[in-house]
Amino acid sequence: MLYLVGLGLADETDITVKGLEIVKKAERVYLEAYTSILLVDKEKLEAFYGRPVIVADRELVESGSDEILEGADKVDVAFLVVGDPFGATTHTDLVLRAREIGIQTKTVPNASIMSGIGCTGLQLYNFGQTVSMVFFTETWKPSSFYDRIKENVQIGLHTLVLLDIKVKEQSLEDMARGRKVFQPPRYMTVAQCASQMLEVEEERKEGVYGPDSLAVGCARVGAADQKLAAGTLKELTEVDLGRPLHSLVLLGKRTHDLERDYIREFAVDQASFDANWKKTYGETS
Amino acid sequence: MLYLVGLGLADETDITVKGLEIVKKAERVYLEAYTSILLVDKEKLEAFYGRPVIVADRELVESGSDEILEGADKVDVAFLVVGDPFGATTHTDLVLRAREIGIQTKTVPNASIMSGIGCTGLQLYNFGQTVSMVFFTETWKPSSFYDRIKENVQIGLHTLVLLDIKVKEQSLEDMARGRKVFQPPRYMTVAQCASQMLEVEEERKEGVYGPDSLAVGCARVGAADQKLAAGTLKELTEVDLGRPLHSLVLLGKRTHDLERDYIREFAVDQASFDANWKKTYGETS
Repeated sequence: MLYLVGLGLADETDITVKGLEIVKKAERVYLEAYTSILLVDKEKLEAFYGRPVIVADRELVESGSDEILEGADKVDVAFLVVGDPFGATTHTDLVLRAREIGIQTKTVPNASIMSGIGCTGLQLYNFGQTVSMVFFTETWKPSSFYDRIKENVQIGLHTLVLLDIKVKEQSLEDMARGRKVFQPPRYMTVAQCASQMLEVEEERKEGVYGPDSLAVGCARVGAADQKLAAGTLKELTEVDLGRPLHSLVLLGKRTHDLERDYIREFAVDQASFDANWKKTYGETS
Repeated sequence: MLYLVGLGLADETDITVKGLEIVKKAERVYLEAYTSILLVDKEKLEAFYGRPVIVADRELVESGSDEILEGADKVDVAFLVVGDPFGATTHTDLVLRAREIGIQTKTVPNASIMSGIGCTGLQLYNFGQTVSMVFFTETWKPSSFYDRIKENVQIGLHTLVLLDIKVKEQSLEDMARGRKVFQPPRYMTVAQCASQMLEVEEERKEGVYGPDSLAVGCARVGAADQKLAAGTLKELTEVDLGRPLHSLVLLGKRTHDLERDYIREFAVDQASFDANWKKTYGETS
């Protein structure tokens, strides 16, 4: 059996009791470590599980899935995924491959950022589609997220923006020369995301949002040091929420007073928050 | 401290290790038992936790929150929520009340149906806003869900439909006479949901969807006997997915071949599925 086990969002104790039992008993345990990260390292996980864990990088999962699946018709193999196995990154391809070669699979769900973002107090019913924001380079500034946000904005919905992480990435030069040398990991911050968003609005000028649009920056959702910052995109370009992972929610027009009351607590500047809320949503009750 | 602890979706072992430690140590433990249910009863939870649990009905949570919060400035109180505490049902009002009276809160996230629905293999990025479907009566058939689905359909997104549950509901007559007699619990099935959806389309005639629209019915997401059924809304009106809880996803036009490959496995009728997929999305590759 192949078990896809969600690890939740923050540390080693966010695994479910059901998931932990599977991990303890499985023949081999892989940790998917390139689309998201926990806030603790592999050694901490191994100590908690009382067993070794094999780190699965993108190459292994995308090209070497048969290695992961080997023998899983007879023994149990666990594939650990930060968040939920079918959350922000879905591992449908691994399950489809398992099906093809007659291996059964089971999933152990856990918190994903797609639902954990509810910790902002913003109602998940009011969210439209989720978008991803990648690191811009001098020559590559993909802005398809802007079109998606526009669709959400037009019907008044919030947008969750998931921020790029670069783990085990090669430089273009190293890649060209076939050198397996990796760059240090990089994690996009809320400030970078807000400023890339504004850069694209300045370029596209469709008025989807602007410097005064309200948003909530989130860091380390679910962790003891979780931090939220509500403010305008302009304000968020200067906020420092500390270590990764970060994400951001752009507020839609369809809001509820309870949402305002909840996020106001996290305002970078409450006077500015109130003024911008009033401008966008009318009188506060 | 008030801890809001997510229980996940299926049984007692879906709690996280972090959540379980809090439950074991807290002075009082409440179980929110009116917006969703686990597939095991309170006694099973109490045996697993090794401690008593107080069932919190709607009345207690909505009018008696001060009773729940009593003393939580000095001792730990745990408030258990099926799924995630800020998932389908948010408990922002309880947290806001705690803030008002100076009680600190912490949340322990868990799987919610809002992310667990990824088990269908449908990508969460392709979902628009989530809607709720309530039990229709002869005289009350609220159709605001139809407008929300229309917005999602227009931009090609999937819609998760959450199905009504009625726990500890009074009949109108008993309510009028002030009798605290409760009806047996009721849980909407995928078949009922599909038929109410078609009823509203027949009434409104805006062509948002129709009998041939593809959808996936889901039962007991995350449980050992989880069951999925992919088919047309017409087909789903006749499907029997067994005991609760059920939910349904109406497919949008923005789909990926991987999504088709994944859900085809659960087709009520694969020939019909292929024909309807082709009609809606063009040639299968």
